[in-house]
Amino acid sequence: MATSKTGFLGERPVFAQTMLRIKDAERSRAFYEALGMHFLTRFDFPELSFSLYFFALEKDPTVPDMSAPQTERAKWLWSRPYPTLELTHNWGTEQQAEFAYCNGNTEPGKGYGHIGFLVKDLHASCEAVEKAGYKVSRKPGPFQDVGEIAFIRDPDDYWIELIQSAPAAES
Amino acid sequence: MATSKTGFLGERPVFAQTMLRIKDAERSRAFYEALGMHFLTRFDFPELSFSLYFFALEKDPTVPDMSAPQTERAKWLWSRPYPTLELTHNWGTEQQAEFAYCNGNTEPGKGYGHIGFLVKDLHASCEAVEKAGYKVSRKPGPFQDVGEIAFIRDPDDYWIELIQSAPAAES
Repeated sequence: MATSKTGFLGERPVFAQTMLRIKDAERSRAFYEALGMHFLTRFDFPELSFSLYFFALEKDPTVPDMSAPQTERAKWLWSRPYPTLELTHNWGTEQQAEFAYCNGNTEPGKGYGHIGFLVKDLHASCEAVEKAGYKVSRKPGPFQDVGEIAFIRDPDDYWIELIQSAPAAES
Repeated sequence: MATSKTGFLGERPVFAQTMLRIKDAERSRAFYEALGMHFLTRFDFPELSFSLYFFALEKDPTVPDMSAPQTERAKWLWSRPYPTLELTHNWGTEQQAEFAYCNGNTEPGKGYGHIGFLVKDLHASCEAVEKAGYKVSRKPGPFQDVGEIAFIRDPDDYWIELIQSAPAAES
């Protein structure tokens, strides 16, 4: 079998998604679009009362219109070669004042940590985040001996690391 | 400022990491390498008693040797254009029999869901996972009207979705 040499995922798999549950889809979409991500598509599952929202950094000219059938939009999504952020919205949580998901970084829900982005100008990115009224929870600065980082928070308080990117070495 | 038009992340950011805390670094490394990911590098922080392990699907010929200084290996990592899985190992957890992280999918720690991979042969991938003694928690099969999926579990019981990929449409 092909996977025996290549690993369980077989030939040319794609690291396609990181999924987080969110309380309020509109609030999250506004944040991730302000971050610079592009909305790709949404799947609705009325029988199960939830929707999935997909975002990517890539501006993909092949994104199908939302009027296309869900099955067709899914087929398109499962052919994309880039990583996406998948946000799961269980309908109704946005109307429950006290409702909140665990961000994975505090007990007893500790486990998941964060997603992270390489950015060209860490300080400018953090300034833009604060100017828009979002939270920079760890100011930009060195972390030990591995470079300059910061942490911001999304509307559900999930952690997002920003890392000062380095130029690729000449080869 | 450049970010005002492009979003907080500025020009050409990279969706670079998804971080999960793990109990046992050797156990996790064996799993993710069997999956088909490649170990990139490790950062050790002795003062803080933890290490970070980075993996990617890409087999990158520029991976620096572990004998290179940590600062140099970090610089290299922050220049890579692909998504990585970052595993955080707080030293000593592997020796605590009862220690376990929350996988994000059960109360009270619900929030984080999973990472997901597109694969060319979903059934073959699941067979390979089971044959190696790992867990397929949701057998491969259709999910509503959006395609064929399965879920497997990593050694910390984190969920990993496998999705039958679709061929890219002719354009």
